[in-house]
Amino acid sequence: MNESLTDDRVWIGFDLGGTKMNAILFDSEFGVLGRRRKKSRGSEGVEAGIERIVAGIAKLLEESSTSKDMLGGIGIGCPGPLDLEEGIILEAPNLGWKNVPLKKSLEKEFGCPVFVCNDVDSGLYGEYRFGAAVGASTALGIFPGTGIGGAMVYDGQIFRGKTGSCLEIGHVPVMPDGPFCGCGRRGCLETVASRLAMSAEIAKAAYRGQAPYILRVAGTDLANIRSGTIKEAIDAGDKIVEEILRDGARQLGTVLAGAVNMLAPDVIILGGGLVEALPRLFLEEVGKAVAARIMPSYLRTYELKVAKLGDDAGAMGAAAWARHRVED
Amino acid sequence: MNESLTDDRVWIGFDLGGTKMNAILFDSEFGVLGRRRKKSRGSEGVEAGIERIVAGIAKLLEESSTSKDMLGGIGIGCPGPLDLEEGIILEAPNLGWKNVPLKKSLEKEFGCPVFVCNDVDSGLYGEYRFGAAVGASTALGIFPGTGIGGAMVYDGQIFRGKTGSCLEIGHVPVMPDGPFCGCGRRGCLETVASRLAMSAEIAKAAYRGQAPYILRVAGTDLANIRSGTIKEAIDAGDKIVEEILRDGARQLGTVLAGAVNMLAPDVIILGGGLVEALPRLFLEEVGKAVAARIMPSYLRTYELKVAKLGDDAGAMGAAAWARHRVED
Repeated sequence: MNESLTDDRVWIGFDLGGTKMNAILFDSEFGVLGRRRKKSRGSEGVEAGIERIVAGIAKLLEESSTSKDMLGGIGIGCPGPLDLEEGIILEAPNLGWKNVPLKKSLEKEFGCPVFVCNDVDSGLYGEYRFGAAVGASTALGIFPGTGIGGAMVYDGQIFRGKTGSCLEIGHVPVMPDGPFCGCGRRGCLETVASRLAMSAEIAKAAYRGQAPYILRVAGTDLANIRSGTIKEAIDAGDKIVEEILRDGARQLGTVLAGAVNMLAPDVIILGGGLVEALPRLFLEEVGKAVAARIMPSYLRTYELKVAKLGDDAGAMGAAAWARHRVED
Repeated sequence: MNESLTDDRVWIGFDLGGTKMNAILFDSEFGVLGRRRKKSRGSEGVEAGIERIVAGIAKLLEESSTSKDMLGGIGIGCPGPLDLEEGIILEAPNLGWKNVPLKKSLEKEFGCPVFVCNDVDSGLYGEYRFGAAVGASTALGIFPGTGIGGAMVYDGQIFRGKTGSCLEIGHVPVMPDGPFCGCGRRGCLETVASRLAMSAEIAKAAYRGQAPYILRVAGTDLANIRSGTIKEAIDAGDKIVEEILRDGARQLGTVLAGAVNMLAPDVIILGGGLVEALPRLFLEEVGKAVAARIMPSYLRTYELKVAKLGDDAGAMGAAAWARHRVED
């Protein structure tokens, strides 16, 4: 009796991004029962934000004719820093939120266990459970975007520091007196190899007249130089754009080489919009840079792969992590 | 009955070094019942080597009036690379050995479970169980010597790659086109911050006449410039020796900063003969370099400490690891 009840439970994975929310309802086999996406609208404030999340989940259940009592749990991947135990978003600069007691609010509303995790962690855990890292003993993920996210799944668990998330590979120092970083230091990897850093290099090249396609379609405003624009510029023959991307990928690879020597991952996942726009370029340059710098005995011990699940990785991973936590 | 039998079991920890072997017999509370040290004499070959290990353990049991049937297990920390599952030393360059089936040989001889582990891992695990890292959630160890050893204990376990040991922090690349490394690459951390690398810098300084104490007591042969000599030279006023050491420690700290950002350890252990000879210098310089480069939010999340157990860490850790494996 109880067993069949267990098997009927459904799970919600929620990916709370700076601009978008993505919620998916899964059956006990992680088949998709329903999904909803909407804008995050962080600027409307914390209370309105929690309201939007609650309403989104309620609507998702309603549309799938699923009652709250069927919920086994909710997993929610959030930008950090977070208090993982208490399920609080301590600060989410992209949303303008501070001290959001998500776990408590959602548990009260839906009467099921709620697990808050870091959004990069949930994305990699999704790839580990359903995507490009299935079966990995140690999966290392690196996601260049505005910053550079990192995560590790080790022995079936999300690798964590004592007080929270870690794998801040974007803040590995690579250049003494290098460019200023959002973290308050200088010369972190993400100051030279994030999409933002590369977009700034590309904007400079456009200003100098070296990237005619970029200048025509995006001007010199780096906010207009998105992943898709970068790919188009390379296809259109802006040579310097390709060089800038290859150089950034090499820098990622150099830091990854150090990470491989330390962590001996058997799978390395490259993900995020920029990598997905230019998968071959990243596999090639990162692959070469890693292979040139790791200990020769590690050469055939890992696979370098591009993430498979796209925007759904976070929601899938969050739901699977919630179930893993409930059942283990 | 069985319970009391369990509690009476004794454990052997064995540290197999390039020049010395250290074996300790422990009671069930890890009190020391006996100990033996002898030279490794790797040049006598693999079979003679196994003989020496077996004879050493037999003698240790005999001297402590302990019979083989009281043995709960043997842990043996070895230089690598190793096959951890099969308990084989694949290659130990310092001993000149290849393919040594230690686990099989010792299990046959002593009739108890034998666990082979990496010597750096057993050293850090010893510190985690009995020394400077007790209670750590994530302990990261770094041991500059001829090379630079690294290890991590995470959530009570030795952190491992799928196929064996890892944490090769000495081979994190730090300098493009840097000095040649024993691993076959260039510019690895240990090419600039190992005792060997610093000894070579010191020998050059002696040759140039900048390190008069070194020149007098050790000449320009870097093999004579050991940890004790380095400490004496600093005490005797060879300023450049101190500068070389501080510079090496800074480079260690820079790589450690990246490791802290990725792994969020709550305890970092510095160990090995050179650190033990100059603990304040290393704590100071490594501490400053780490603090200057980690994400500001990590500043108060870790302790930097010097190893406590000296030469016994490896044997103690190997014995405790064997027991952990037997009982878990």
